[in-house]
Amino acid sequence: MEQPSLQHKIINDPVYGFITINHPLIFNIIAHPYYQRLRRIHQMALAYLVYPGAVHTRLHHSLGAYHLMCMAINELKLKGVDITLEEEIATKAAILLHDIGHGPFSHALEEEFLSGIDHETLGLHIMNKMNVEFNGALDLCINIFQNKYHKKFLHQLISGQLDVDRMDYLTRDSYFTGVSEGVIGYDRIIKMLVVHNNELMVEEKGIYSIEKFLIARRLMYWQAYLHKAVLAGEEMLVKILKRVKELCLTDKDSVKTGSGTDYFLFEFNGVLNDDVVHKFCQIDDIDFEFAIKKWSSHADIILSTLCKGILNRKLYKVRFQSEEIDNDLLEKKQAALAQEFNVNKADSNYLAFTGSISNTIYKTDDEKINILFKDGSVKDISSIDNTLIHKTITNPVKKFYICSIL
Amino acid sequence: MEQPSLQHKIINDPVYGFITINHPLIFNIIAHPYYQRLRRIHQMALAYLVYPGAVHTRLHHSLGAYHLMCMAINELKLKGVDITLEEEIATKAAILLHDIGHGPFSHALEEEFLSGIDHETLGLHIMNKMNVEFNGALDLCINIFQNKYHKKFLHQLISGQLDVDRMDYLTRDSYFTGVSEGVIGYDRIIKMLVVHNNELMVEEKGIYSIEKFLIARRLMYWQAYLHKAVLAGEEMLVKILKRVKELCLTDKDSVKTGSGTDYFLFEFNGVLNDDVVHKFCQIDDIDFEFAIKKWSSHADIILSTLCKGILNRKLYKVRFQSEEIDNDLLEKKQAALAQEFNVNKADSNYLAFTGSISNTIYKTDDEKINILFKDGSVKDISSIDNTLIHKTITNPVKKFYICSIL
Amino acid sequence: MEQPSLQHKIINDPVYGFITINHPLIFNIIAHPYYQRLRRIHQMALAYLVYPGAVHTRLHHSLGAYHLMCMAINELKLKGVDITLEEEIATKAAILLHDIGHGPFSHALEEEFLSGIDHETLGLHIMNKMNVEFNGALDLCINIFQNKYHKKFLHQLISGQLDVDRMDYLTRDSYFTGVSEGVIGYDRIIKMLVVHNNELMVEEKGIYSIEKFLIARRLMYWQAYLHKAVLAGEEMLVKILKRVKELCLTDKDSVKTGSGTDYFLFEFNGVLNDDVVHKFCQIDDIDFEFAIKKWSSHADIILSTLCKGILNRKLYKVRFQSEEIDNDLLEKKQAALAQEFNVNKADSNYLAFTGSISNTIYKTDDEKINILFKDGSVKDISSIDNTLIHKTITNPVKKFYICSIL
Amino acid sequence: MEQPSLQHKIINDPVYGFITINHPLIFNIIAHPYYQRLRRIHQMALAYLVYPGAVHTRLHHSLGAYHLMCMAINELKLKGVDITLEEEIATKAAILLHDIGHGPFSHALEEEFLSGIDHETLGLHIMNKMNVEFNGALDLCINIFQNKYHKKFLHQLISGQLDVDRMDYLTRDSYFTGVSEGVIGYDRIIKMLVVHNNELMVEEKGIYSIEKFLIARRLMYWQAYLHKAVLAGEEMLVKILKRVKELCLTDKDSVKTGSGTDYFLFEFNGVLNDDVVHKFCQIDDIDFEFAIKKWSSHADIILSTLCKGILNRKLYKVRFQSEEIDNDLLEKKQAALAQEFNVNKADSNYLAFTGSISNTIYKTDDEKINILFKDGSVKDISSIDNTLIHKTITNPVKKFYICSIL
Repeated sequence: MEQPSLQHKIINDPVYGFITINHPLIFNIIAHPYYQRLRRIHQMALAYLVYPGAVHTRLHHSLGAYHLMCMAINELKLKGVDITLEEEIATKAAILLHDIGHGPFSHALEEEFLSGIDHETLGLHIMNKMNVEFNGALDLCINIFQNKYHKKFLHQLISGQLDVDRMDYLTRDSYFTGVSEGVIGYDRIIKMLVVHNNELMVEEKGIYSIEKFLIARRLMYWQAYLHKAVLAGEEMLVKILKRVKELCLTDKDSVKTGSGTDYFLFEFNGVLNDDVVHKFCQIDDIDFEFAIKKWSSHADIILSTLCKGILNRKLYKVRFQSEEIDNDLLEKKQAALAQEFNVNKADSNYLAFTGSISNTIYKTDDEKINILFKDGSVKDISSIDNTLIHKTITNPVKKFYICSIL
Repeated sequence: MEQPSLQHKIINDPVYGFITINHPLIFNIIAHPYYQRLRRIHQMALAYLVYPGAVHTRLHHSLGAYHLMCMAINELKLKGVDITLEEEIATKAAILLHDIGHGPFSHALEEEFLSGIDHETLGLHIMNKMNVEFNGALDLCINIFQNKYHKKFLHQLISGQLDVDRMDYLTRDSYFTGVSEGVIGYDRIIKMLVVHNNELMVEEKGIYSIEKFLIARRLMYWQAYLHKAVLAGEEMLVKILKRVKELCLTDKDSVKTGSGTDYFLFEFNGVLNDDVVHKFCQIDDIDFEFAIKKWSSHADIILSTLCKGILNRKLYKVRFQSEEIDNDLLEKKQAALAQEFNVNKADSNYLAFTGSISNTIYKTDDEKINILFKDGSVKDISSIDNTLIHKTITNPVKKFYICSIL
Repeated sequence: MEQPSLQHKIINDPVYGFITINHPLIFNIIAHPYYQRLRRIHQMALAYLVYPGAVHTRLHHSLGAYHLMCMAINELKLKGVDITLEEEIATKAAILLHDIGHGPFSHALEEEFLSGIDHETLGLHIMNKMNVEFNGALDLCINIFQNKYHKKFLHQLISGQLDVDRMDYLTRDSYFTGVSEGVIGYDRIIKMLVVHNNELMVEEKGIYSIEKFLIARRLMYWQAYLHKAVLAGEEMLVKILKRVKELCLTDKDSVKTGSGTDYFLFEFNGVLNDDVVHKFCQIDDIDFEFAIKKWSSHADIILSTLCKGILNRKLYKVRFQSEEIDNDLLEKKQAALAQEFNVNKADSNYLAFTGSISNTIYKTDDEKINILFKDGSVKDISSIDNTLIHKTITNPVKKFYICSIL
Repeated sequence: MEQPSLQHKIINDPVYGFITINHPLIFNIIAHPYYQRLRRIHQMALAYLVYPGAVHTRLHHSLGAYHLMCMAINELKLKGVDITLEEEIATKAAILLHDIGHGPFSHALEEEFLSGIDHETLGLHIMNKMNVEFNGALDLCINIFQNKYHKKFLHQLISGQLDVDRMDYLTRDSYFTGVSEGVIGYDRIIKMLVVHNNELMVEEKGIYSIEKFLIARRLMYWQAYLHKAVLAGEEMLVKILKRVKELCLTDKDSVKTGSGTDYFLFEFNGVLNDDVVHKFCQIDDIDFEFAIKKWSSHADIILSTLCKGILNRKLYKVRFQSEEIDNDLLEKKQAALAQEFNVNKADSNYLAFTGSISNTIYKTDDEKINILFKDGSVKDISSIDNTLIHKTITNPVKKFYICSIL
């Protein structure tokens, strides 16, 4: 009676148990070197400096998001939403590829490293390149990814207020950091998803889970993504690149590392083409970490100090406050450090500086988490009586900070 | 070199791993029949009608709270807070006994069953009775329980805004119901506790965990404690007792069950004394569940219908709304049900009725969760800039509902 | 585009997340009073005396087994095994009903309470009775349950060496007791299931998971199911019933409790019919627990002592050893206790006695866990080289014990 | 009343919750660059090729082992074992440092990379070097580490059959891989530890937990550490180094990477001294990963193929069997691959080759897990009746394998 097994593969995931791969296109994407590259990019960049467990990768995250997509599509189909097999596979392919454009230590370095080209733009280029190799098998996937497909909810599952990307990264980052308060009820949220007027919505009885999701996100922002020491590490990375570029002007050889990053640091003119995209796909966190190790013994005291800081976890001290940092304070700090390190005034800006960050719990303008009530009416979660997510608390929270090396 | 083992015992707890008992007074309390009685009282009353796993007991909860108390005291002592061994044991004894006064299906039935005597009052009577048996070993424990002891933070650990009681019940109820969003970071909160000016406070960097705690509590209220079907079950219990008392007036024998509840239902005059307290300590959920089984075949259609409702999970239908229920609607419903069940108008009140519930996320008036800042200043969490717990959202949320048997 | 939601319901389960119900027959079974009765029967009988969390119910277990059945059928279908919708629903119904014949504190009491009628026999009677009510909708379900259906693997999923019953109870009992070593990789085992020659088997790469499953089962036996104090409690229950039957001969009124158990204790002649089956379906743990509370103040010192023992956790002391207990030791113990309690020699058998238990890690005779190798060959796990489950360790382990009340 | 907080720091660990650091020596060790280096060494080497979550680090593992050591020492002190504060800190320091001598992709590369110098030897050199910097503060720590201290059980906690090293790595590897069957009851085992005759032992009632521990270890060996694809990856690493050394003979420049590994690959003569130790402490997984990336575009087809294999997860195919691999089979395979890759016969050994691995569940010779019975007798676990760990199953399991690139 039994039939030959269909080809399928399972991957152990500590977060969800098992992730099942059972379609050739999905296999081919995962086997592609561009995708395997994500194995060498940390999902949470330098957060491991605070949370030693936070060393998981973008490959792992995108596999997790793919798993949640399988669950979500399954749920919607059970509820009678019409999704063809082709649409299903294309949507799953799109979520697997949604982070394909991330470079090393991504968010921190987009500006310095890639002349501000963002990872979505790069991602689209890479997908198109892969699509050529795959003879157009990614056509629909790319359409959905770009939100050009008429079933809008498919795009919303990939990139929207309740997309599986966010659900996975909150769940996964919480698992690997051990910040248990970041746990969201992803399975419950998925069970509450519905499609109404071609848009993704949440059933009324899912309101509390959505609130919980938004609060958990907020908590993860302040406790993990914007944690003092994480911020300090990322500022260090940025300053290292700035310094390297400065040193390059006078002594390029001393800062070359022999890796693919050299091109982007010293030659890239900001114009994307196939060759540049291919070069980009050769670099990952390893190249940067190697460079930092190398530069940590550079003759320039500023560069070596910053690099050693990352390696040995001697990070900038960060102080947060709700008012802007007093300029006098900064200048005094800089003057003292300039003397201590025997550098000039201009360079002291590497040793002490100020900045600000902000986070909004829910942006009523562009976020739209729509709740579908039993009577058929639809309301944005921030406009429902008695919910936590009121207009009054949807203003951004801004914090100012000063960083200094000692 | 090794010494003989000190007598100590470990109890497997799925929530915390192991709970260690290592003092004779703690042993004696746990071994006492009054304490063992808590094994027969559900922690979450009828919540198992919605969450099949929610069958854990008050004994289990109080052991869990005791475990958290051990952790909290340990933490405070590590931070240099002066707590003597005697104070430590007394505080642990007090948390073990904090729920000793709970009767069957406690909150729902205090009014109907015990003439409104609350469980704290009863608890104190029981502790005093045990203290006589224990030759005064509970003196300090009772002092702390009543907040008469000068180290106020010890009482606050038992009963305050961040007491280990709440921390355990949220954590435990979340574990047994499977409502993962109810998880709080109890271990992180405990690590953040400090004592300042003799009061329990939370370090500045614990703010997000406290917010998370309050949000999780709110979520558990609406999703578990005040869930429609839980509410329906509890209303059924109350109506059953009302009906039994009514029937007792005309035919006492038909409603007697032969258990200790008979006394409290038909004879108790509201005056507590040692004999009454002892009688109280003989009854638990078993007596009620048995009574309900017995009454489910009572000749009175209302009584039997309600009792079968609990047994077979045919609960009141509940509809919530944010405005008061229209009286006409209620009357129509009652009239229809009176006809259906062939009962008179007065009795139709058992079959359909209205009510309301409310819950407040944080009561600024009597809740005081104080945050201790690094500069030594102290602020209530609701008065800190940029926190979620603003005055604007500390108003109670009120919901109105109508219940009907069909 | 969206369609109206199909009727389906989700149940929160702390073990698996959510259990989905989406077929009318499954709804009807769950809503039936006979099924709801399982809510009032502890899955692990008196194990809560050792593991305070082990208060979960047979209803919860059978819902969990149903969930694993959904997973297993899904997996087999993905692998191309032919299972029709009708077979699928019938198999799910059968697993929901597999424990329907369990009485109060089941295993311990089958002998004393039900004249040795086992729960499978009773279960079949109950299913047949329900089938009449359901107009034959359970025909196929009962066929599969009785292993009369030609697709044998469907029965094996319900009752076999790797049935979802065992997988759920090990997983669930481990969750609620907190015995983390009892955890099995149920999801991995399910992913490894295959059907070959109409029989359920396991893929080669699942061998270690199966070993782990057998070891975990063994561990749970000795650490939970046959734990000293659990054994002591169950022996107490048995002795209580024996004593009650003895007292009944001389003073029936003193031991009647007014519950449905009276019939089975004092009148039942061992012949099953529809009326008896219906009577059986009215009783559950509540009746017994109530009886024990009542008997705890009985004039007979033996009965009251044993009942108080259960209530207040003053259990028999149990000593295990690998050789048979010396008879002299027992007689001395009995003589001392007879004097202490002022009872005659015959009655001292209630206060001290001996017994034995045994457990086998894997019974090569009637257990058949077949492994399907990649080359198509099939071997029983105990006959594979280098596995843990060798013939040499498949002999039963027998332990002798003595119980005494003091 | 409150006292100033003692300086202490907590680290979030997803496995245990929080790890507390509260002694200056422990702080200083963790802050040392040699210790921070462990952040850049994967605990499970290439296991991430199979288990995407297995990217945790040796730093994380040693922090975890330190945490278990805190628990174990605490437990033993509660049981009256005499452990001074100095001994306590020294033992904790020793467990933190127990893996300090691990190099990149450690076990796989010791032979090729470090002329066979093992990580314990290197570790001791590094500790001595740190001890000089710390002015002798590590004297006792090093004594205990080398098992020269008279309280032998302290060494056994670090390195013995039930050391906290193994307990942590099994628990942690299980958490990060998601192989739930690898979970051990570390907390229960720790609660069961006793010291008798100056040796670490386990209480009688811990037998089942120990069995479970040994079985879980066995399972993790076959399912994770010796998994086909992990083995394939490690064989690839070894072959890469062999090839690099070979190429170095003719064209050194083409294989130099500019990192600290160059020294060990091309110059190291196997003699340890302070300078070599310092050089060693500069290298980590990053250097190797960078080298592999660089060599992946090397002109030598064998080197580049193997390096691309690691990067893009095109691993050797591995086939296991219980008999030795037939030599003819190997030669045929090699001949075919030599032709396919256009290389000579000698080089085809990089493309296909054979090998063997073995694992023993419990080595009765050198493992001694002693059980302390209540009557004071002591038995090795393998000599106790009815336990799983019999002499009959303590023979090593050996598997033969063939690897080939296609």
